[in-house]
This record gives sequence, C-alpha cells and structure tokens, in this order.
Amino acid sequence: MTSSIDVLVSEVGPRDGLQSIHRLMSTQDKKRWITAEAAAGVLEIEVGSFVSAKLIPQLADTAELVAHSLTIPGLTVAALVPNYRGAEKAIECGVHKITIPLSVSETHSLKNLNRTHAQLLDEVRRIAALIRDVPLPRRPAFEGALSTAFGCTIEGPVPQRKVVELAEALMAAGCDEVGLSDTTGYGNPAQVKSLTLAVWAAVGRKHLTGIHLHNTRGQGLANVVAALDVGLSTVDASLGGLGGCPSAPGASGNIVTEDLVFLLEAMGLRTGIDITQLLAVRRIVQEALPGECLYGFVADAGLPKGFISASKLALDD
Amino acid sequence: MTSSIDVLVSEVGPRDGLQSIHRLMSTQDKKRWITAEAAAGVLEIEVGSFVSAKLIPQLADTAELVAHSLTIPGLTVAALVPNYRGAEKAIECGVHKITIPLSVSETHSLKNLNRTHAQLLDEVRRIAALIRDVPLPRRPAFEGALSTAFGCTIEGPVPQRKVVELAEALMAAGCDEVGLSDTTGYGNPAQVKSLTLAVWAAVGRKHLTGIHLHNTRGQGLANVVAALDVGLSTVDASLGGLGGCPSAPGASGNIVTEDLVFLLEAMGLRTGIDITQLLAVRRIVQEALPGECLYGFVADAGLPKGFISASKLALDD
Repeated sequence: MTSSIDVLVSEVGPRDGLQSIHRLMSTQDKKRWITAEAAAGVLEIEVGSFVSAKLIPQLADTAELVAHSLTIPGLTVAALVPNYRGAEKAIECGVHKITIPLSVSETHSLKNLNRTHAQLLDEVRRIAALIRDVPLPRRPAFEGALSTAFGCTIEGPVPQRKVVELAEALMAAGCDEVGLSDTTGYGNPAQVKSLTLAVWAAVGRKHLTGIHLHNTRGQGLANVVAALDVGLSTVDASLGGLGGCPSAPGASGNIVTEDLVFLLEAMGLRTGIDITQLLAVRRIVQEALPGECLYGFVADAGLPKGFISASKLALDD
Repeated sequence: MTSSIDVLVSEVGPRDGLQSIHRLMSTQDKKRWITAEAAAGVLEIEVGSFVSAKLIPQLADTAELVAHSLTIPGLTVAALVPNYRGAEKAIECGVHKITIPLSVSETHSLKNLNRTHAQLLDEVRRIAALIRDVPLPRRPAFEGALSTAFGCTIEGPVPQRKVVELAEALMAAGCDEVGLSDTTGYGNPAQVKSLTLAVWAAVGRKHLTGIHLHNTRGQGLANVVAALDVGLSTVDASLGGLGGCPSAPGASGNIVTEDLVFLLEAMGLRTGIDITQLLAVRRIVQEALPGECLYGFVADAGLPKGFISASKLALDD
C-alpha cells in the first residue's frame, strides 16, 4: 500500500461479481471496466480466476485481462487460483498477487473444491515452491484466503480455533499472508475483531491485513467499521455489489465498492479514489450487462450536499 | 432501560415510517403491529405524533394508539410533538415520553416547522413548564431531538459547534435529555463519535443516550457500531425500514429494526427481543399495506444456520 492512502480498497467485481452471475461479460467490456476503475484511483483489482473455463465460463478470458491490466501503471493485478495448475498459468501471465481460497468448513471445501484441507494444503505447498522459483522482480505475492471463516451455510458456526489453525497451516505451507473471508455473510463486528486478534496472535500482524466481507445480512459496512477499528487496512468490495442478485431484492453479496469508498472518505480515511469518477463506472457495467441488478445506496441517494472526500482534502493541502 | 438488556431498540415505524408514506394504515392494523412488536420484546415504541391531522393525516389516530399502547405491560409509549398544543394532548393522553424535534439547520427548521430556533426554544420552555406541573408518577420524560445534526440537504454541512450550542439550549430550556438525529443520512461513524463526545462534554453523558440514524447512504449500521463503541445505548429503528421507499430501490430511510436487532444480538448485546418473532411482525405490516416496500437484509437472507441470539443465550444461563 502506498503511504498516500489510509485504506486499500481491493475491487473484486470482475472476479467475484462476474462469477456469481450467469451472464457473460465481453472481454472488451471487462477491459473498459478495469481501465475506468483504475482511472478513478482504485489501486488493486482482482481481474479473474485461473479456473477451468468449463466450470466458470464467465472468467475464461482471465489471461487476456491480466495482460491488459498489467499495462495500467500503478495497478496491482490480482487473480484467484483454485489449484496448482491455475497458479502455473497465473505466474506465466505475470500477476502481482495470487490468492487461493481454503474453506474453513471442510464440508464446504469438499463441496466447492472437492478437496480436503490436507489436500488443499498440499497444493498450497506445491504452489509456494513454484512461486519461490520465480525471479524476485516478477515474483507474485501469495495469499491464502480463509473462506467461510465467519460461519458456513452447511456446517453452521465455525470454531475460531479452526480458523486460527488453518491460518497457521497456510503460513506454514508457504503463503505470504492470509485473509479473512465472510463468504456467507454471517459475520458481525464483534467477531471481526476477535477473529482478527486471534489470527494475529498466531501468525503475526503483518501476515493478516485484509478482509473480504459480504453484505448478505446488511452487516457489511458495520463489519468494516470493526475491521478498521482493530487495524485491518485492506477491504475487498465489488462495484455495484455485482454478483449479489438472488431473487430477494436487497440481499446482495459483496459489499458495494462505492458505498465502502463513501464510508471511508467520509470518515477522513484516504483511499486515493475519486468517488464521483467511481460512481460513473457503474454505467460501463450497466451497459455491458443490461438489466442486471446493481446495488448501491450512495448511487441511489447521491453524495451529501457539500461533501468533500478525505482524498480531495489531502490533495488541496 | 432495564438491566436485563444492553441496548434499547426504540421502534419508530408507527410514527416516522408511516408519516413518510402517503397511504394510511388503519388504526386496527396499527394496534396489531404495536401489540405484536411489544410481544416480540420491543420495550419502547414511538406510536405517533400529536401533529395536526390536516398536516399529517396518517397519524390522526395517535391519541387512540397511545391509549391502546398504555395497556401493554412494560412498554414505554413515546410520541412526537411539534409544539405546545401537541404536548398538551400528549400529556392528557398519558404518554411516557415526549420528543420535540429541533432542526439544527435553521433553514430546515423554518421550512419544516415554520419556526426559528428562538421560537422553538421558547416553545420548549413552555412545554417544560407544563410537564413540571404533571404529578410525578404520570410525568413524561422530555427529549429534544437534534435533527439534521449530521448535515442538511439545504444547508449542506452543519457545524458541530451549532449542534453543541443547541443541545445546551435545549437542556437550558428544560429538556431532560437530547438526542442526535441523522435525518438526512449524511452521517459517518467518525462523526457519530465526535459529535457524541462534543455534546457529552457540554451537557453531560446521562443527558444524551440515544441516536436516530437513517440508512439513506447505506451507512446506518456502520454508524450504529460507532455509536455503541462510544457508549450510546438507545438506537431508533423502523420495522422493515418503513418510510424509506422513494423511487430509487434500496435508498431506504430509517435503519431496519430487524437488521439492527440481528447486529446487536449477534454481537452479544442483549435487546430482549426475539428476532424470529420480530421478523414475523413484518407480515402484519405487509398485509396492512399491500404492495408497500419493506426493506431488510435479514428478512431476505434468513438467519445464519445455528444462530443463537445473545438474549436467548442469557435466558439459557
């Protein structure tokens, strides 16, 4: 993170958003989206996942998007990988950051990735070895994302001890850092704090800096406040809350990038993002996916009269 | 507040919700709503406003609702009053708590209540004198609500100094307590904390315990987290976010009671409310107002698998 920002907003819409909807966005439109969002000041974007195109055809063009995104100065280009084969491709493409998800709920892990914890940790070890062989200037950061860390729709509550053990196991297997993911939208602010502190106690503060929150039960930004309070500094979000459009209106998935940026900038925390420019990016996504639900309270209500963002104030200093 | 709860959730839907929609709810339906919500464990309900029925016909039956609500054991029955005349009626009806709004933005005050600050403070003084004459067992609590405290749609940013001055003026005029209202949904968590601390410094901690937040920009529950963190203990909310249904979907008004109660109970804070029973009250409101938008993420997504509320845990102890 550069020193000119207080919180890093990591856009995951092109990956988490698009994989959650059935329709395909054209590669051209994805490039426009990524370019426009980077131009608005977003410093990190997860542009896709190196997953089988048969499984998730929506993300089949990830390699091309990485190539495009790497031409944008200052942008950290992140990608998800489900396995060793995906990591090979990600490294070949030159991504800056590789994230592998490990579901704390083993039932969920078996159902989603068809792998036990032991199998997945073995894969992590092999990927870590692969990454170590990449010459330093091109070597990507390697994050293990602890999904269902706040509870599982199949298993229910997930013991904190299990999250901590798997965080330690991921670090021991060679990850550079771990991340907490509230995949199911079960998390609450008290849990965000206690889980972060517990993982920090086990793996060290610098190895957990980011959190991935969902807004399924409307608690997304409340959880962000707790995350900021405890000292986390990277927050994932999806433009327009893309991907959270089940039949029930309002039951969105990822937290909405625009609402998150408004929260942070209003609180005096610099994101480096121009919120007006960011809000305008919605049109690109909406035009690319006509009729698709886009969420966002700030987009609906508009900015407060006389609103000046922290990033703008800093520029005027 | 009773000692068996940690946070008092004050339901304002029958007043703030219903006055914001154009349709009328029948008195019978309002009674069913109030009764059911009290049965779910809600301990305070603002049942209406003693305002001219010509101005707000939706609330014309406030006196009858107060009479009904006073028969519910343990329920604190609150009502809004815009002026002296309204306060007279409220006292006559025997409400437990009277709230008079004072808009920190004088432009907003003139436009909404056709009164300057000086005129309104004069009214407050006369009401306070009236209340002092009520014999103690029947004497209502008297709150001055600082509306537009977080910013005004006409004036824009509202100086913190002005909020503090008016809080002092309300207390000097005879209020028992003041409340902070984010009428416009402009507030952010940092502001919630700094404003609360500033008002506390001026009028004393025990004279400001409650906050009224809107979710217009999706920041409602994030602001609640800050309010809890600083030590406020009463939070207003509206069942189904009723009253926040402009043309733009998602741009709701009051924070949603069900989502607030979920937040608190998940964090381990007892509200005394049975969330499942509370969620069931939505049906009464929906049947009474067919087609009216009801908000609520928890209602849409359901409770987490295996969820046990703090209030339930406390009962099992």
